[in-house]
Amino acid sequence: MDRTGIQQDSAQVEAVKDLAEVLGQKGIFTQESDRERYASDQSGLSGAMPLAVLRPASTEEVSRVLAICSRHRIGVVPQGGRTGLSGGACSPQGTVVLSTERMSGIIEIDHEAMTLTAWAGTPLEAVQEAARAAGLDYPVDIGARGTATIGGTIATNAGGIRVLQHGMTRPNVLGLEAVLADGSVVSRLGKTVKDNSGFDLKQLFIGSEGTLGVVTRAVLQLRRQVRHSALALFALPDHAAALACLAAGRQRFGSRIRAFEGMWPDYWDFVCHETSLATAPITGRHGFYLLVEVEAGASQPEEELEAFFAELFEQDLVEDGVLAKSLTEAQALWSVREAVGEVDEDFGPHINFDIGVSPSALGHFCDAADAVLATLPEAAGALKVGHLGDGNVHLLVAHDGSAAAEERIEAAIYGLLRNWQGTVTAEHGVGRIKARWLGHSRTPEELALMRGLKGQMDPLGILNPSALFLESED
Amino acid sequence: MDRTGIQQDSAQVEAVKDLAEVLGQKGIFTQESDRERYASDQSGLSGAMPLAVLRPASTEEVSRVLAICSRHRIGVVPQGGRTGLSGGACSPQGTVVLSTERMSGIIEIDHEAMTLTAWAGTPLEAVQEAARAAGLDYPVDIGARGTATIGGTIATNAGGIRVLQHGMTRPNVLGLEAVLADGSVVSRLGKTVKDNSGFDLKQLFIGSEGTLGVVTRAVLQLRRQVRHSALALFALPDHAAALACLAAGRQRFGSRIRAFEGMWPDYWDFVCHETSLATAPITGRHGFYLLVEVEAGASQPEEELEAFFAELFEQDLVEDGVLAKSLTEAQALWSVREAVGEVDEDFGPHINFDIGVSPSALGHFCDAADAVLATLPEAAGALKVGHLGDGNVHLLVAHDGSAAAEERIEAAIYGLLRNWQGTVTAEHGVGRIKARWLGHSRTPEELALMRGLKGQMDPLGILNPSALFLESED
Repeated sequence: MDRTGIQQDSAQVEAVKDLAEVLGQKGIFTQESDRERYASDQSGLSGAMPLAVLRPASTEEVSRVLAICSRHRIGVVPQGGRTGLSGGACSPQGTVVLSTERMSGIIEIDHEAMTLTAWAGTPLEAVQEAARAAGLDYPVDIGARGTATIGGTIATNAGGIRVLQHGMTRPNVLGLEAVLADGSVVSRLGKTVKDNSGFDLKQLFIGSEGTLGVVTRAVLQLRRQVRHSALALFALPDHAAALACLAAGRQRFGSRIRAFEGMWPDYWDFVCHETSLATAPITGRHGFYLLVEVEAGASQPEEELEAFFAELFEQDLVEDGVLAKSLTEAQALWSVREAVGEVDEDFGPHINFDIGVSPSALGHFCDAADAVLATLPEAAGALKVGHLGDGNVHLLVAHDGSAAAEERIEAAIYGLLRNWQGTVTAEHGVGRIKARWLGHSRTPEELALMRGLKGQMDPLGILNPSALFLESED
Repeated sequence: MDRTGIQQDSAQVEAVKDLAEVLGQKGIFTQESDRERYASDQSGLSGAMPLAVLRPASTEEVSRVLAICSRHRIGVVPQGGRTGLSGGACSPQGTVVLSTERMSGIIEIDHEAMTLTAWAGTPLEAVQEAARAAGLDYPVDIGARGTATIGGTIATNAGGIRVLQHGMTRPNVLGLEAVLADGSVVSRLGKTVKDNSGFDLKQLFIGSEGTLGVVTRAVLQLRRQVRHSALALFALPDHAAALACLAAGRQRFGSRIRAFEGMWPDYWDFVCHETSLATAPITGRHGFYLLVEVEAGASQPEEELEAFFAELFEQDLVEDGVLAKSLTEAQALWSVREAVGEVDEDFGPHINFDIGVSPSALGHFCDAADAVLATLPEAAGALKVGHLGDGNVHLLVAHDGSAAAEERIEAAIYGLLRNWQGTVTAEHGVGRIKARWLGHSRTPEELALMRGLKGQMDPLGILNPSALFLESED
């Protein structure tokens, strides 16, 4: 994608004029300095300069704006907080950006129904804080919480570290309002937990990365607040032991397991020993590391975690462990896991794979991936960290920064994945970076159905063009 | 719908001949005595005699059968156990039935991934039993478990009494295989818990009542088995107290609440006093009754429920209570709630509404419904029983059995519901009985999108014609 401000054709000029009329001065950015800030997200991909940045302030304005873009056949890139890692919010040549930043705010909290209704542009953290202030909790949590918006987390079906207990974003959305490409508003903002009255249309907008509609408002399912939980770090002989720990943990704690995060030795050694990104809370070399968080049942969760450790130790499933005795200690344990967000400078150019396979196959897949990478001179090191209970590993593979190396490594890893009935993206989404690899985890029949649905709902292809679908690439 | 065996036209005769060729002798019923058994479900609606009953034994046979039906433009009614309550499996004139009864059996259980893969025709109870034999649990549970099939529960997004803890069928399906109207097989039978690689196509088939595709196989998410739980029945002053109990219960037990079922006095008095359907476990008159089941945390759940009762009693939220001390006593408590399945004979002709509203609005909606019914001479009594935490009430309204009375009562109740942002069916589905009322809970824009999707995926309208969509009624 070309970043230079190319000459706009007359149809584009006309479209921007019509859009400005609807949105008013505050509602549209047309200066190059403003537009540049909205061209890209956190994926590393550079978008082209958008023709304009649309900043509608209501569902009605979104509707009018999309109708105009349809009429002029101008592509529209919906944007929340631009924290995505797959280029889904990077603007291709000749498109406008539609930012939800002026549609922000909590509309209602219903204590009895345990719901929160918010505008799409509301930051995730603002929703979490409002829920907590009401004595409740919104369980979807990701590192980018301060900037990521509710609309963005819905459009990308955001995952994160709490998926084990409450799922990804999808099951936490009760009601949704979205605007279709032609400007029609599909609104269902009730609080019914159960609803079998025809197709569950919100499922189409959740996780489709803005290619089927623009999310404007949502009713979120809040959960009871967890007031007390305990956190421990376990060192284990290998990944197989971690799977056995997970099974034992499920028996003991059931749905009280809040996090079950896995770190492979390559990742552990890099952040704790090869760099100063984190301090090792456990000494010695081990084959696998687990961060386990459990919410309080009837008794003290710290005691429960200690008893759990004793049980696992007895069975030779764990070798060492440390229990957080204070909030500070808990933060220190989490910081090892969260250091993955800060490896860029030390690790250098790399591909951040977001692989999902069956939880039972994750260890074997990672072994196979290591074996494949060992044969590739382009692969200059790998780090593995992931959500163990979800079968999701973030595999970071360093290379020399060349497109050729990237291509070879991607082809090797995604080629391997093809045989594992897994997914090329468990939580980051396809965006523009992984569109070409989609065929490695979806069948031709699935891709044909996806294209059919896209064609039905957005026949002119104006919604987030070149995201998800390769063929509409400019 | 006409039940008489009308003369088949020559195209239909030709189609049945082609189908018989693919399916072989065991795979098709063409005798009238056989066909008659497949015409209707448990809704009370009578289907027309199907042209033939197709009994494919594999995904490939389903694919070939649908391709033939597409070519001959013959409507196909997919059938599982025919236990539906909305007429979704009743065959309209001139259609064939596609029964999944020969595609039955558990394909695989994966202990580490906690998944079970099964053919669509497998009875729900067989899945539950296989999961339990493996030390795990499949949490979707409905009264018709012995006959209802996994495919049917997926196509109708079955709910039931365990929704509070693990949701309806939708979140318990990990992978799905379905055949489209043209015979293409859309298969995704992996065990990835998280998957953001493009549209989540399985969501289209879950709950769309066989109008978008025929489910053939599924990967189900199993849960850890609950080995110990406690059950109590509480008598309360009113519905508002029940909501306060639910909030207090969530604080105390979190996700360990397994059931939170509500019974209004009209229902309680009818099954316990006016008939011999159940024996009242609590004496005296009360304003509301709650059945609360809690799974064991670290301590004894019986003691926890007793402490919970004491807390609520202190706040005047409950008036009386009884704790099940044995399995027999627990069954006796459940039998009051489950008597709703046996009221037909004593209660006479009635409409079984399956209303869903916001959980916070359920009490007020029921009061409003009572007030509306009191003004209708056609309404000869009402019983209310429901899933309190889900905002779902089964409102049974007796009448003289005439179509006119039915029409008046339905118009009044659904007319009321329109203002509550609720749903005309929370869990039973639309089928053929509620299709005409769909506009009372879905907007014109939603209905237009639903029709667009149906047109895209089944352009000839051969899949379950006249279910969900009024306009394809014969």
